[in-house]
Amino acid sequence: MSFDFQVTARDGAARRGVMRTAHGAIDTPAFMPVGTQGAVKGVTQRDLELLGAEILLSNTYHLYLRPGDDLIARQGGLHRFAGWTRPILTDSGGYQVFSLAARRTIDEQGAHFRSHHDGSAHLRTPEKAADIQAQLGSDVAMVLDECLALPAEPGDVRASMERTLRWAARARDRFLALRAGEAPGVIVTNPGQAQFGIVQGGVYPDLREESAAETVKVGFEGYAIGGLSVGEAADVMYDIVARTAPCLPDDRPRYLMGVGTPSDIVEAVARGIDLFDCVLPTRNARNGQLFTSQGRLNIGNARYAEDNGPPDPACTCYTCRTFSRAYLRHLFLAREINSATLNTLHNLHFYLDTLSRIRESVSFGRFESFRVAFHQGLSSQPHDS
Amino acid sequence: MSFDFQVTARDGAARRGVMRTAHGAIDTPAFMPVGTQGAVKGVTQRDLELLGAEILLSNTYHLYLRPGDDLIARQGGLHRFAGWTRPILTDSGGYQVFSLAARRTIDEQGAHFRSHHDGSAHLRTPEKAADIQAQLGSDVAMVLDECLALPAEPGDVRASMERTLRWAARARDRFLALRAGEAPGVIVTNPGQAQFGIVQGGVYPDLREESAAETVKVGFEGYAIGGLSVGEAADVMYDIVARTAPCLPDDRPRYLMGVGTPSDIVEAVARGIDLFDCVLPTRNARNGQLFTSQGRLNIGNARYAEDNGPPDPACTCYTCRTFSRAYLRHLFLAREINSATLNTLHNLHFYLDTLSRIRESVSFGRFESFRVAFHQGLSSQPHDS
Repeated sequence: MSFDFQVTARDGAARRGVMRTAHGAIDTPAFMPVGTQGAVKGVTQRDLELLGAEILLSNTYHLYLRPGDDLIARQGGLHRFAGWTRPILTDSGGYQVFSLAARRTIDEQGAHFRSHHDGSAHLRTPEKAADIQAQLGSDVAMVLDECLALPAEPGDVRASMERTLRWAARARDRFLALRAGEAPGVIVTNPGQAQFGIVQGGVYPDLREESAAETVKVGFEGYAIGGLSVGEAADVMYDIVARTAPCLPDDRPRYLMGVGTPSDIVEAVARGIDLFDCVLPTRNARNGQLFTSQGRLNIGNARYAEDNGPPDPACTCYTCRTFSRAYLRHLFLAREINSATLNTLHNLHFYLDTLSRIRESVSFGRFESFRVAFHQGLSSQPHDS
Repeated sequence: MSFDFQVTARDGAARRGVMRTAHGAIDTPAFMPVGTQGAVKGVTQRDLELLGAEILLSNTYHLYLRPGDDLIARQGGLHRFAGWTRPILTDSGGYQVFSLAARRTIDEQGAHFRSHHDGSAHLRTPEKAADIQAQLGSDVAMVLDECLALPAEPGDVRASMERTLRWAARARDRFLALRAGEAPGVIVTNPGQAQFGIVQGGVYPDLREESAAETVKVGFEGYAIGGLSVGEAADVMYDIVARTAPCLPDDRPRYLMGVGTPSDIVEAVARGIDLFDCVLPTRNARNGQLFTSQGRLNIGNARYAEDNGPPDPACTCYTCRTFSRAYLRHLFLAREINSATLNTLHNLHFYLDTLSRIRESVSFGRFESFRVAFHQGLSSQPHDS
């Protein structure tokens, strides 16, 4: 068994740790840049290595449709296919089925949907989601969970949470069969793959606690909190995280899916979370929004037209060391590809550097003072948005 | 005077040399990647430095319209603005006025045109083209020449060539005034700037010879051959180059504008050319076409779907060392930004490496055998196009 997690330092509920996978170790708390289609938009694998990214997230839904997990498996798995030698976590594809796919219907078996590319019909079951991820060969696979349309009544949230539990048990059975070599026709490209369960239950603490307890009973290498950062207020999310994290085993990594802003990440670490992913740094970069130690900066604003300072004077990234706001604004307005690249390099550096500072502050028992100073910094300049 | 050119080796008509500019020396023959708007599309300045690019070309027409040469001058010039410390050559903007701008009319004064962005009216004179380039602060500025619409009658070609000569004299006068600090209102951001004249004359050797002789009489730090690679057959272009190059001073660099394919470059070097620029490696990269030692490869072709070899087995670039044709095809079909980046990295490496091999072969008196082997290699595999 290649997977292992050790907590190495604590400060309040915040933890520092090391997560070992078949493709190397990750210092936690960690942020995973999102490489939707086997590539992080705008930056190369070399750029990501230079940024110190230790783990990427890739999207099963997209890779299943194009180029196909069968093709990737024949090419030796996603690591080899994408030229990325460090760890990869794949989602189950469920979220995209629920948000991107056309004409989806859900039943106990799974999710029926049509491709957003060509309208072809597909069925995603918990077993199939495990099979695809086995073929991709990610280091961490996620179970298929039901992503409920919001707003939802408590009764519907409970029913969905219970279905997610039944699906989790099926996903784990299939994962164990794959690991045991008992899944003919599936090419298992990474025998050291781990599988994480997902806690659901909306904004209802009792449902979250029940979901956590039952998911832990199924038994996974790690646990995620899903269904948050979907429109609820930040303090509601923080409360749910605070209630849910302690229900998860202390010796397993905790992953808050799809979160979030730099503030969200600091607050979730304060409540015991170890892993994060989010498209904000990469997507907002392409839209000209830079995350800085003093808040967000929209590089297209006229006030930066002749600003020869770096995006973030406190930042040591390639973009901030080399280019001015004036030049980056020009690239953005001219729709140059480099605008996406340079903005993404900066935003990912800011996220990864923030996580690095978080880890250090936990090690030295100074997380609370880091947290206060970080939030103060973010509001020290008028935000562009 | 910062500018200098020395021929350091010869092999037939082919020459190797060193061109010294205010921002450093360039080994010639050299290829200049095109950074139209102050950025080479898809690759960062860091990437270009790693590729060994010694000089970039940037387009005056585009930078004049956006963000404006006044703004760039206030930011300290194009080198500082774009974070590029090595040499830069700027064109005069004439070619884009003739090809991109709306409602252009030409008279003896210059070219009247409207911006392709907003329809605003502008006048480009030989003097104004020199002023803009002085503000940009390129290391080599080009004179404004008339780019004739083709096909054209010999009489029209002569008239246009003669106008280009009159403009060349005006451009040189203005350049010398700028250098002498006698151009109030213009910010000269690079006092070491050189200026090249441009030989015109279409496909008529006698006009070319006359244009060369008269342009040399005006006197420039270097000389370009313009108005080729605009639709004429390759052998016609090679003949014109062969007739024109010997009419230019042996001790000044010779620049064949807008050329060309790898074969074109080798053939032009064989006829005494030192400098090249072309959008082919960058533009074709974005369209999925890779230049390789065995010919061109269209990465989107179905035959590469499961091809786990590199684009060019003979290539040592980052793309070829790291990624398979199958992965690059996936990125291209998925329209990932990284497709443009990785293809551009490869194509620029191929061009720059070809120039490096040319220089080495000239140094060792083996240019002819290089030339034969290079052409044989290009046709050794069926081309994709």
